[in-house]
Amino acid sequence: MSWGVANLPYGVFSRQGQAPRVGVRYGDRVLDLAAALHDEVFAAPTLNPFMARGRAAWHDTRALIQEKLTGDLSVTGAHLIPLDQVTMHLPIEVGDYVDFYCSLDHASNLGRMFRPDAEPLLPNWRHLPVGYHGRSGTIVVSGTPVKRPRGQLKAGVFGPCAKLDIEAELGFVVGVPSELGSPAGAFEDHVFGVTLVNDWSARDIQAWEYVPLGPFLGKSFATSISPWITPLEALPRIPGRAQDPEPLDYLRRRDDWGLDITVEVSINDEVVSRPPYSGMYWTPDQMLAHMTVNGASLRVGDLFASGTISGPRREERGSLIELTWNGNDPIKLASGETRTFLEDGDTVTIRATAGDVTLGEVSGTIV
Amino acid sequence: MSWGVANLPYGVFSRQGQAPRVGVRYGDRVLDLAAALHDEVFAAPTLNPFMARGRAAWHDTRALIQEKLTGDLSVTGAHLIPLDQVTMHLPIEVGDYVDFYCSLDHASNLGRMFRPDAEPLLPNWRHLPVGYHGRSGTIVVSGTPVKRPRGQLKAGVFGPCAKLDIEAELGFVVGVPSELGSPAGAFEDHVFGVTLVNDWSARDIQAWEYVPLGPFLGKSFATSISPWITPLEALPRIPGRAQDPEPLDYLRRRDDWGLDITVEVSINDEVVSRPPYSGMYWTPDQMLAHMTVNGASLRVGDLFASGTISGPRREERGSLIELTWNGNDPIKLASGETRTFLEDGDTVTIRATAGDVTLGEVSGTIV
Repeated sequence: MSWGVANLPYGVFSRQGQAPRVGVRYGDRVLDLAAALHDEVFAAPTLNPFMARGRAAWHDTRALIQEKLTGDLSVTGAHLIPLDQVTMHLPIEVGDYVDFYCSLDHASNLGRMFRPDAEPLLPNWRHLPVGYHGRSGTIVVSGTPVKRPRGQLKAGVFGPCAKLDIEAELGFVVGVPSELGSPAGAFEDHVFGVTLVNDWSARDIQAWEYVPLGPFLGKSFATSISPWITPLEALPRIPGRAQDPEPLDYLRRRDDWGLDITVEVSINDEVVSRPPYSGMYWTPDQMLAHMTVNGASLRVGDLFASGTISGPRREERGSLIELTWNGNDPIKLASGETRTFLEDGDTVTIRATAGDVTLGEVSGTIV
Repeated sequence: MSWGVANLPYGVFSRQGQAPRVGVRYGDRVLDLAAALHDEVFAAPTLNPFMARGRAAWHDTRALIQEKLTGDLSVTGAHLIPLDQVTMHLPIEVGDYVDFYCSLDHASNLGRMFRPDAEPLLPNWRHLPVGYHGRSGTIVVSGTPVKRPRGQLKAGVFGPCAKLDIEAELGFVVGVPSELGSPAGAFEDHVFGVTLVNDWSARDIQAWEYVPLGPFLGKSFATSISPWITPLEALPRIPGRAQDPEPLDYLRRRDDWGLDITVEVSINDEVVSRPPYSGMYWTPDQMLAHMTVNGASLRVGDLFASGTISGPRREERGSLIELTWNGNDPIKLASGETRTFLEDGDTVTIRATAGDVTLGEVSGTIV
């Protein structure tokens, strides 16, 4: 069965008239963990207090849930609630949000578009995972409508964004904090799980504003994440992609943290791209090591994302700016319509799977 | 008297063995507000719950405190605690932290240094207040030691930052949130008060990492703020500096939000610069309007800062990279020592006053 005991992502749900609390998805139902495990940490409206318990607790809790769900369901079954009776909420209280830029194909495509006469990759790109801080206060859960932003499009021109885009990404959720002044420890001791991210982007606003301090209003209007956080333990791992030059020691991979995850991007229910996460240049353990090497501390609920996932082939590109080559080569939909960037009413859904494990979806409609 | 009833900044203090709570500074004492006003909102460990009450409550509370302090001190005096008996804490729980780049002289100086053959200002600079998101989890209160960060200094080179710098700034603290999807309302309806900010900067790390997504590890290791938040009501206001071209309508000034604040930067107790806030090109109401014009929401505790305050004269520059022209022209200290960038053991203190009102100081020592 889909969403079986090998999967078991965590989320925050509510039943009508009741306060949000933590559950685990099992098939088409959600297990009310506070009730099933008699543990008040799951009565919180976010995953943060549970995540803060750390890796041993994550492992033991998962094992306990698997035991309950494969045991006598006449007991546990009472705490399984059909998904159509619940509302899903933002599962974490987000601390800081960092967005990286880890796909070589994505970074090269953007370089080719915007600096056609120069090397596609900037000199620093192969030496460190480039990243920046985004706005954590505008992170919303899948299903939240996304209002087309307005802003400065160029000198003296104000109006609605005409190049509204998506970025299909994976996000990594920090469960265990680290001390100010010291780099973080091992990846698996800090990172609780994985979510899907759509980093909505207003390309015209971004192009005008972004020098020299980076993206700001072109991104800060909304970032959507999936309601389910998949624990690291559920995900199959593979070696990361080869790197040249060899990274500095603090970025050296000490374990395999490549992830064999297939992503699928749909516009109005039609698949327009299938970006492969396995081809990402920088792996999430390297992102974490880089983000904290200067002594920056982690908090429970920090979120860091991979940046747009793009593969080398056209049908593997994770943003419309790449799929349509900045609007010059529209994509055709089955309806006969074409798209350069998003139109009002468009619904974008990003889904992902890792073998038998599904990471669910993040979806949003432009209003 | 200094720190009199026209001043009255808010902070969070604790007495030995007691939990942090909100107070107001009066002379060399702090008024315990939960005790003096019989209001539990001040028993919180941050200003956030009080700030969330909004502008009318800010005004009424200030008036009430002034009344108590100018009335019968035989009653109120019992709740005035000498400052040397308390520890000051980070006064707010920070939501998102945005840093702007509002000084024409600062932006021009950096342009001249790094792009000597081009126009000092980039094309967007006079059209919008350029800004970016910083790391809110590493904002610390004045007095917290700052550990020299390590990181990538250029391709293949890792080590301690050799160009550790300061940025003297004002920070604006949001008290009242705004809705996702709509621009914020009037400045004075959202912004509670002003703090001093030292945006510590690792110039070598920053120079290597910052293209194309902006500063990241060069800033994220620490940002210090003063323990006292001065309410807007205490600050004298002046017209903002003339702007050319006329800004777009959403950035048009509807009221005078220029601030006549004199800032003083000291290294090891010796004043090295006096940047005038009055000369800033973009005013804080314009920063707020810009930050939310795309529909980005505000949360209680959001902090946005002005960027380095620099005036046109050398002795008015608010960063060492400007004062020493990227290390080429060291400053001489009274001790006979020179400085290009900060050395271990250096203490940097930024103080500010607005007429008779003092904003206090933000201080930190490099370790």
